[in-house]
Amino acid sequence: MRNLWLPTRCGILSAASVVGKTEKQGPLGACFDLHSPDDRFGQKTWEKAEAEMQRLALNTALAKAELDERGIDAIFSGDLLNQCIGAAYGLKDFTVPYFGLYGACSTAAEGLILSSLLVTGGTLRRAAAVASSHNCTAERQYRSPIEYGAQRAPTAQWTATAAGAFVVGSAEEAEVLVRGVMPGIVIEKGIKDSANMGAAMAPAAADTLLRFFAATETEPADFDLIATGDLGYEGGDILCELMQMEGVDIRPVYNDCGMMLYSRDTQDTHAGGSGCGCSASVVASYLLPKLATGDLKRVLMLGTGAMMSPQSIQQGECIPAVAHLVCLESKEEK
Amino acid sequence: MRNLWLPTRCGILSAASVVGKTEKQGPLGACFDLHSPDDRFGQKTWEKAEAEMQRLALNTALAKAELDERGIDAIFSGDLLNQCIGAAYGLKDFTVPYFGLYGACSTAAEGLILSSLLVTGGTLRRAAAVASSHNCTAERQYRSPIEYGAQRAPTAQWTATAAGAFVVGSAEEAEVLVRGVMPGIVIEKGIKDSANMGAAMAPAAADTLLRFFAATETEPADFDLIATGDLGYEGGDILCELMQMEGVDIRPVYNDCGMMLYSRDTQDTHAGGSGCGCSASVVASYLLPKLATGDLKRVLMLGTGAMMSPQSIQQGECIPAVAHLVCLESKEEK
Repeated sequence: MRNLWLPTRCGILSAASVVGKTEKQGPLGACFDLHSPDDRFGQKTWEKAEAEMQRLALNTALAKAELDERGIDAIFSGDLLNQCIGAAYGLKDFTVPYFGLYGACSTAAEGLILSSLLVTGGTLRRAAAVASSHNCTAERQYRSPIEYGAQRAPTAQWTATAAGAFVVGSAEEAEVLVRGVMPGIVIEKGIKDSANMGAAMAPAAADTLLRFFAATETEPADFDLIATGDLGYEGGDILCELMQMEGVDIRPVYNDCGMMLYSRDTQDTHAGGSGCGCSASVVASYLLPKLATGDLKRVLMLGTGAMMSPQSIQQGECIPAVAHLVCLESKEEK
Repeated sequence: MRNLWLPTRCGILSAASVVGKTEKQGPLGACFDLHSPDDRFGQKTWEKAEAEMQRLALNTALAKAELDERGIDAIFSGDLLNQCIGAAYGLKDFTVPYFGLYGACSTAAEGLILSSLLVTGGTLRRAAAVASSHNCTAERQYRSPIEYGAQRAPTAQWTATAAGAFVVGSAEEAEVLVRGVMPGIVIEKGIKDSANMGAAMAPAAADTLLRFFAATETEPADFDLIATGDLGYEGGDILCELMQMEGVDIRPVYNDCGMMLYSRDTQDTHAGGSGCGCSASVVASYLLPKLATGDLKRVLMLGTGAMMSPQSIQQGECIPAVAHLVCLESKEEK
């Protein structure tokens, strides 16, 4: 295999985030564009609420870029729901070519990669990447309805009620540059515990990161931040250990979107946040503004997805995972 | 919105198909590369069987192109299963960057579009598009396990047990050219009957086709075949009527992969075939060889996907649909 580091000439024009009540109460609460105090977003079902979050996120991102739907040539979107109905229903009123994605929690990064490559190649003028998750849709689908109050394992992550949207365009009009991307390879290392997805995803993150450092001849110190999304505390620790075993110490610049989204002291999310919307909202609302101002210069966003289903777990299968990397850079010489 | 007709300079090097027992007994039976007489492909569960079909299809397509996994830079794949486990598990042993897609029955076309655009732009040397469906996984997930013997509506389509894989590369090394692509827009016209997905998808197919003819200044007579995948008999009729209302008569060159896959006389599939693997296997095994020999000169493949889920139907939602178009051309001057 070629070591598929793909330099790009494009950037992110605008981004928007939409979150639920718990996320709004977290340490990044002030950063988000929109939230719903009851997680319902005015809808009758959780699934419709999640779809509405996708719609709101994309509309807000477009408004920030002073664009309407005619300004984008394609939408890349997905979510965790069966048949990705959050994306399909939420975005169905945009008269824009639509590419449905399934990358689990790596969806935002997957969408950013495809948007960036097709804008760089000149195929698309601009494209949007959108991703969402909702705690109540995910709990019902993957585990049990939240009303049951089922006990959670200490290694379990908390699916974020969050959506993020990004508008990708030329480097000239962008607020933050996308300098390159590296799509992930599906890695499966024998983890079967769906309450410990961080452990399942960490080897995929390590694989992509090691290939990235080799291909670009860089090291962790070349970056202000390496942000996975979302390994949580458990998977984040494992990733740092796996990298250390390969002689690469990422700890000084490492963080995880699932660790950033909630307060460990006041919000008990066990191993941290997860869900397609977790990294999407943290990058959109917290990391990109810091890159725009130059407070962060170079950031690696590493979207990590666990590609199992409840059925594959019931059938005794291990959890395959994938980690997609996006290299972001500030335009400011601060 | 720009009318997003995207000319490409690439082609399909090889393709392979893997089908189940019923498909093997159908009119295209002799065309398929591999089949399983019991639909199990040596696996213990239907889901594992479907994953195995994806693996076999890609391996066979690579072998036909005299390539191994090092010859392709990316895989674009999806299926109908919750969290797309057919693709993720079936292809996890390929050490190749992986992009998970969810486009329902349009997945093969969606993968061909993304592969073609990224090969044309020079981003990827070659890429593979893979899609699958399995009657027993789909029936259990969308309706009820086949053992129940539930009665089916006359407008219902039969989910094909089939997988198709395509290797996309440069025009020079290709057997069949991809002359351009047009991604679809999500269209929802108020159809709520999940036993009549053809009706839900036909408006999306009409939308893409009309935009295509307008953008390329072509008409149906410029093509030997316009093949949807998969509207079935019901949706195919509706599409022809919708086009007729716009003054475009596609009937002389129209067919549907779901109508081609099964015999209407001897195999009662009601409204015809469907499922991600239906168009994938028909194009891979039947249409591409005819294009390779010049028996067909110019073909429009129109992948159509119904983007609902059992849950969205239970919640009373309509069915959004998308139709992705791929324009195929023979290299032979026959």
